[in-house]
Amino acid sequence: MVGPTTAVIGAGISGLTVGKMLSDYGVPYTCFESSDRIGGNWAFGNPNGHSSAYRSLHIDTSKERLSFRDFPMPKEYPDFPHHTQIKDYLELYAEAFDLKDNIEFTNGVAHAKRLEGGGWEILDQAGKTRHFEHLVVGNGHHWDPRFAEFPGEFTGESMHSHHYIDPKSPIDFFGRRILVVGLGNSAADIAVELSSKSLQTQVTLSTRSGAWIVPKYVYGKPADTMYRTTPYLPLAWQRKVMQKMQFMNGSDSSLYGLPQPNHKFFEAHPTQSVELPLRLGSGDVVPKPNVAFLDGSTVHFEDGTSADFDVIVYATGYNITFPFFDPDFISAPENHLPLYKRIYKPGIDDLSFVGFAQSTPTLFPFVESQARLVAAHLAGEYALPSISEMEQTIKTDEEKYIGHVLKTARHTQQVDYFIYEHDIRAREIPAGRRRAKPGVRA
Amino acid sequence: MVGPTTAVIGAGISGLTVGKMLSDYGVPYTCFESSDRIGGNWAFGNPNGHSSAYRSLHIDTSKERLSFRDFPMPKEYPDFPHHTQIKDYLELYAEAFDLKDNIEFTNGVAHAKRLEGGGWEILDQAGKTRHFEHLVVGNGHHWDPRFAEFPGEFTGESMHSHHYIDPKSPIDFFGRRILVVGLGNSAADIAVELSSKSLQTQVTLSTRSGAWIVPKYVYGKPADTMYRTTPYLPLAWQRKVMQKMQFMNGSDSSLYGLPQPNHKFFEAHPTQSVELPLRLGSGDVVPKPNVAFLDGSTVHFEDGTSADFDVIVYATGYNITFPFFDPDFISAPENHLPLYKRIYKPGIDDLSFVGFAQSTPTLFPFVESQARLVAAHLAGEYALPSISEMEQTIKTDEEKYIGHVLKTARHTQQVDYFIYEHDIRAREIPAGRRRAKPGVRA
Repeated sequence: MVGPTTAVIGAGISGLTVGKMLSDYGVPYTCFESSDRIGGNWAFGNPNGHSSAYRSLHIDTSKERLSFRDFPMPKEYPDFPHHTQIKDYLELYAEAFDLKDNIEFTNGVAHAKRLEGGGWEILDQAGKTRHFEHLVVGNGHHWDPRFAEFPGEFTGESMHSHHYIDPKSPIDFFGRRILVVGLGNSAADIAVELSSKSLQTQVTLSTRSGAWIVPKYVYGKPADTMYRTTPYLPLAWQRKVMQKMQFMNGSDSSLYGLPQPNHKFFEAHPTQSVELPLRLGSGDVVPKPNVAFLDGSTVHFEDGTSADFDVIVYATGYNITFPFFDPDFISAPENHLPLYKRIYKPGIDDLSFVGFAQSTPTLFPFVESQARLVAAHLAGEYALPSISEMEQTIKTDEEKYIGHVLKTARHTQQVDYFIYEHDIRAREIPAGRRRAKPGVRA
Repeated sequence: MVGPTTAVIGAGISGLTVGKMLSDYGVPYTCFESSDRIGGNWAFGNPNGHSSAYRSLHIDTSKERLSFRDFPMPKEYPDFPHHTQIKDYLELYAEAFDLKDNIEFTNGVAHAKRLEGGGWEILDQAGKTRHFEHLVVGNGHHWDPRFAEFPGEFTGESMHSHHYIDPKSPIDFFGRRILVVGLGNSAADIAVELSSKSLQTQVTLSTRSGAWIVPKYVYGKPADTMYRTTPYLPLAWQRKVMQKMQFMNGSDSSLYGLPQPNHKFFEAHPTQSVELPLRLGSGDVVPKPNVAFLDGSTVHFEDGTSADFDVIVYATGYNITFPFFDPDFISAPENHLPLYKRIYKPGIDDLSFVGFAQSTPTLFPFVESQARLVAAHLAGEYALPSISEMEQTIKTDEEKYIGHVLKTARHTQQVDYFIYEHDIRAREIPAGRRRAKPGVRA
């Protein structure tokens, strides 16, 4: 065995890929999972409450783009797999690499304390104190619902998209007057599903800021297979060209009565829906600007209009939360979590974060790429640069990926997968190897 | 009053526009309507059984294209109005032109007999015999369900899309294994609606021949507002150019596992759906070729595969039926109804058909155009050409609009609205006026 004893928090995408990479290098690790199953967000109905999947959820990334680079999805899968198929795929992945042997199920991390001089004292949920040399945090960032805060009080039902299952659950939406707040993928999917005329509902969609609404298919092929950035041209230019092409997709949300996007294309995760523009254009979903204030069953909007509702569904995203850390040790106020390569907090070398990004157009191989770097680090094949260099790089990377975007809670973690993956594989890992083993040719 | 006493069968789109045009010319008429309301197909839940509308139905033509040329739709309507809005619009139309005064409600035509030497003896549903000099048939062609006939017997439930209302009606589709047969707009809409994961169904779509599946929006605008043929170039060329562009829409059904279209673009009514390709690409709707035979609950397909089903929904179109005519007088075997300008049967000058066409991209102004010619005829402002000229024109028109298409029951009535409207307005009506009033300058 090489490398430090390592604790991994969570057996979702992040914990699984880290586990696989650590096994590859022979680094000893224990994965703590609060649930009785793997998959995290992709384990529909996860008893630990950490899945946001609704019954109809299909991944918005094509299987080709979504596949782990070292474990392609089954050939018979459709272009855009259902959440049950993603879960099955993760099971196959865990089985192929014997990942479950290292997982302690229904035993999450209650508290993690960094010891003076390094190393970790962990209190597990079974009440036992454990010690590790390194800690990998992969507890995800799509499980702690974030609500929009509006003045006044709403006397109808309020719920978050996190708890939405289907039109009958957790509440029966039949015949209701529903306000969906937000314009991300959950907002679009839920507004579309609940506005089915067969439910005899009235659905209104309110959003503070616009979005780019893109189709899943272009030219009859998964749209994301036609998207590819190159590290050899400035990302801002490439995004500009792609934005220029968006008139062809009719992606600007203001075409359908919603506000205009307040950011350039791909500076934030685009909303993938061919159905939402149609529902807006058919009058089945009524577009509204941001909520001004709430008053009983009435919601007042910023354009001076108002309407009565039975239910508000907040599809307003998630907080980045680390319940196992003391808040003054590490937290992410307003979801701002500056990390070197979205992994390392400068000055704390024995701690890695994995999966804390909004990576377009794909997440799984992004996480895999992070896991590869973490494993190289723990195996002694990679060393971090100086604290000041890390802090400088955090700033330039943020500038590159997020650009001029208003730093709202939704946009703090945006990265471009192709640029990121190339950076890690072709630049950062070789540079870290040179730092770790000076004089040895990379 | 000018012109012959006229009976109009039906107060749907056809009967209403004919009534309006006859009033304009001062031609006396009586409209017979078997229902207690106007609207025909657009009167959801029409007690006469002649509406095929399902609860979620939105028109597949944009309001701009759909509007009668002399009565635009309300400005506040969405781009693609709901069937309830179409019905309201027809009510406004009827009110604006006092059309209900001439309608006998719940009194359809039981039998219509042409007298020797011309004129009509009509037996109404109230049992009274009535006499008219001219008969206008506008009883529609979307009310008599046409089933596909497959060998063998299916022991599950079979129904036609005509009777489909929503996922709970006329049967509860929840959790069922459903086969939808067809690839027209009803087939696409119903397969999409029933494959919603929230219904926990399994939906398969079987089709004999492929179709062009086009989106409702292109570039963020209603697609049909960007389509315009010109009468000054051969229609076949124009369709060829449009077909060449279809790769951009990903319209070829074979992209999603269905058969290829067996006809050129717009030789048949295209299927409008952005959702169906997505459902096929997500595995929620399973594509299959034509049914080979039925065996109990098992359906065998032509590719040798088979599967078990609880319900078959036949979205296989409609028969053109005239229950009030003796079958050996006029009928439409295999939906073939050759008519001069889709209106006149050569040799029977005192009979007009209105609304018997599949007009792309829009139906309402097409019917209006037919009604305009019929009214000019009855007012003595238009005379028909000779029988042999009419028979010749029927052939060349069919060649123009339907082209090389296999003459299946679905494709017999295809016309191009722009070409047709220009032909009627700029050529046929002036020519008919010259025939009616030789020597008078048109």
